[in-house]
Amino acid sequence: MFYGRNEALMTDLYELTMANGYFQTGNAERKAVFDVFYRDNPDNASYSVFAGLEDVLQFLSGLSFAKDDIDYLRSLGIFSDAFLAYLADYRFRGDVYAFREGSIVYPEEPLVTIVAPLLDAQIVETAILSLINHESLIATKANRIVLAAKGRAVSDFGARRSHGFDAAVFGAKASYIGGVQSTATVLAGKKFGIPVSGTMAHSFVMAFENEYDAFLAYSKIYPDNVVLLIDTYDVLGSGIQNAIKLAQEYLHPRGLKLKGVRIDSGDLAYLSKKCWKILDQNNLEETKIIASNALDEYKIRSLIDQGAMIDSFGVGENLITSKSNPVFGAVYKLAAIEKDGKLVNKVKLSNTVEKITTPGFKEIYRVYSNGKAIADLLSFKEEIVGNADPYPVIYPRKPWKQISFSDVEYRKMHQKVMEEGKVLIPSPSMQERRDFLRYQVENELWEEEQRFEYPHIHYLDFTKSLYEEKLRLVKENSNG
Amino acid sequence: MFYGRNEALMTDLYELTMANGYFQTGNAERKAVFDVFYRDNPDNASYSVFAGLEDVLQFLSGLSFAKDDIDYLRSLGIFSDAFLAYLADYRFRGDVYAFREGSIVYPEEPLVTIVAPLLDAQIVETAILSLINHESLIATKANRIVLAAKGRAVSDFGARRSHGFDAAVFGAKASYIGGVQSTATVLAGKKFGIPVSGTMAHSFVMAFENEYDAFLAYSKIYPDNVVLLIDTYDVLGSGIQNAIKLAQEYLHPRGLKLKGVRIDSGDLAYLSKKCWKILDQNNLEETKIIASNALDEYKIRSLIDQGAMIDSFGVGENLITSKSNPVFGAVYKLAAIEKDGKLVNKVKLSNTVEKITTPGFKEIYRVYSNGKAIADLLSFKEEIVGNADPYPVIYPRKPWKQISFSDVEYRKMHQKVMEEGKVLIPSPSMQERRDFLRYQVENELWEEEQRFEYPHIHYLDFTKSLYEEKLRLVKENSNG
Repeated sequence: MFYGRNEALMTDLYELTMANGYFQTGNAERKAVFDVFYRDNPDNASYSVFAGLEDVLQFLSGLSFAKDDIDYLRSLGIFSDAFLAYLADYRFRGDVYAFREGSIVYPEEPLVTIVAPLLDAQIVETAILSLINHESLIATKANRIVLAAKGRAVSDFGARRSHGFDAAVFGAKASYIGGVQSTATVLAGKKFGIPVSGTMAHSFVMAFENEYDAFLAYSKIYPDNVVLLIDTYDVLGSGIQNAIKLAQEYLHPRGLKLKGVRIDSGDLAYLSKKCWKILDQNNLEETKIIASNALDEYKIRSLIDQGAMIDSFGVGENLITSKSNPVFGAVYKLAAIEKDGKLVNKVKLSNTVEKITTPGFKEIYRVYSNGKAIADLLSFKEEIVGNADPYPVIYPRKPWKQISFSDVEYRKMHQKVMEEGKVLIPSPSMQERRDFLRYQVENELWEEEQRFEYPHIHYLDFTKSLYEEKLRLVKENSNG
Repeated sequence: MFYGRNEALMTDLYELTMANGYFQTGNAERKAVFDVFYRDNPDNASYSVFAGLEDVLQFLSGLSFAKDDIDYLRSLGIFSDAFLAYLADYRFRGDVYAFREGSIVYPEEPLVTIVAPLLDAQIVETAILSLINHESLIATKANRIVLAAKGRAVSDFGARRSHGFDAAVFGAKASYIGGVQSTATVLAGKKFGIPVSGTMAHSFVMAFENEYDAFLAYSKIYPDNVVLLIDTYDVLGSGIQNAIKLAQEYLHPRGLKLKGVRIDSGDLAYLSKKCWKILDQNNLEETKIIASNALDEYKIRSLIDQGAMIDSFGVGENLITSKSNPVFGAVYKLAAIEKDGKLVNKVKLSNTVEKITTPGFKEIYRVYSNGKAIADLLSFKEEIVGNADPYPVIYPRKPWKQISFSDVEYRKMHQKVMEEGKVLIPSPSMQERRDFLRYQVENELWEEEQRFEYPHIHYLDFTKSLYEEKLRLVKENSNG
């Protein structure tokens, strides 16, 4: 079960036809190593944010096939009875290694590594990829938007434009890890403990005789949270005037405050500055101005550059779909497989050069110099790295260059989070995952990697032995 | 419940704060009319495909708040006890009017109209929009991709790049309505009866000693569905050769067929033509060539233009996220509300001109001339249209133009599908929805509207009375 739902068949059919194949050819129990990695950062960025691990573990630890799943599979007429009987009692038996959620991650390095019997590793591919791809995508986008807002609050308003309910709810979760302050999606609040926020829409204002009556009615019900939507009719001609009238005639005499006004259309830079001035002239400088309307990191940056007087941004479709780049292209590739009791490294060649994989059961080190993360280093899992100073490594994009590390610190990035299907390390709280990302951005990440345009490309180096093994396997397999 | 899941809190918080507001101010029971409509077609197209209605009805008819929902809402400290007690026994009481699923639809016309007590209409906004936006988006994209394939089969391979599980499963459903032949997502097959397809991935080939052994093993298990992935090592140097060897040495002697080969990387135009030639030279002209790898409608069109010998396309991320345009921007706007026992028309002005809404409880007619749909016509629900010939209408983008219809047929587009929360018309089968779309495209839709570049823009006309009422309300409300 996945949060109480039976999602065992959330898989591509070929995972099951292959699994049946492994089962019938005596390959099902061979230990296999699969890596989840991605090839390019969304939006031409330098890095991405890893999210989705908690849900992967929730899926894997709860995976079992119900009777109606088995019946459906039988109805397809392609699976052996023995395989279906096996599936009926199936439980995931693999080990999982992964980055912590909220980690800054880079292309080509394993975000998650699954070590499991081949059958087990194969049938969980689709679900793992869907969860990691979705949540990493949204966490990454949220992080960009939050960076653009330079300390101003950002809220997720995206549910209505989401790709279905899960996209809204798990997207809100990922957004929170990425740094937004709250979500409008109530179910995400209930499910994951994320702060929720929301006040009124245009329909509320229109349901009353006039705008002032709507504002007044709202204030009577929510006296401690008077945030008014002021663009239903005309921001400057009506909305802000009625808000000020309400403050003066109703709120202030009762010791209440006009907490905020929200603008959801028009020229947000112009309107926010005008509203701020009007509020200021009426001694309402504490009233916050909230803006929404198809915002993203670029529009927010531009608004701030123009001196817009906005305290808080509501972000919808551009966040919840990562509209400018709605695919986080993580893949799941075989890196090693057991033969005669030993793990044998594997590489996939493909007719597209970028699709060549990196073989072996691997470890990822982040390399720090004076507290800053200067590179990531891929090695075999059991390899000892940094045992010389300077320590020579290979940068596969420029393998002819002599590169070595001196006076650096190497930190292992993967934790073992599951062993034989049992969760070893419970997921940190939402707040911890969010704080962890923030800590890395503020302390470890080069500013040059945070640029939206032409950021510094983080180095992903290989140990000499890993690089040589990749070359050897490419050569060996090129013979067909 | 929504397919057995409690998704009652799949709503923006402000729907509930507004509902509580209506409840406490005696506005909850006022009848209200809300329209779901969108403003622009994805990908600069002329039309879109409407989908998601079945799931909207599933959500509305199953909506109820569980005890833990109420407890969570209470914990927020902003809702009155009376409202929470009311919610605990709540059932949706509205009427729903909508296009049939699979309908061709156009911007600015109501896809769905909700007529319900204001409280009811408000709290279902977010869920309705998420479902309609998601499924219409994907059905629309699928339709484009299927058109580009010009009769060749298209399959949905997108689950791994989907925005979570629902996006994969409901996206597969929408893709099927849009015209794809099958999906790889097993859960969509089980849940909605969509044909599923899938054979092998690279990991299967790599799990065996060599490519030929993998192909042979697969053929022994699935002798009637031998579709081989031939790009794990080298399509021309190895994959196609091993496939032919298998056909000659194993399949043909047993009366079996090499059903297909799949290419997932490299230059698909070049490789498919080469493979086709090699297959042909070996008397394997019946073997199908299947191509995948980041395909979309433009790449498919280009492949066909280049003479690629591809029988079937597997489409992933570009379909399941509608990557080039991942937002179907449908909104939900108040069109009329009861006052003193009568429906009063409403308009929302906004500081952005395009955001001005169309008031009133409306009907949509599609206007046919010689079987072709030449325009859509918006009227008030009870208005009689076409009662003169020529019948004058207004085209709001050029209101000064004299337009009238002569010798045409007017067909009502909305069906009443729900009354007081009860489903009136069960959803047609998946196949019927798919066939319905296909019928419209092949018979009713101008070819000029099907162009990807600069398509003919379908006319959306207003009856005179509707247009005048809109103008009147805009003027009336402009005074603030």
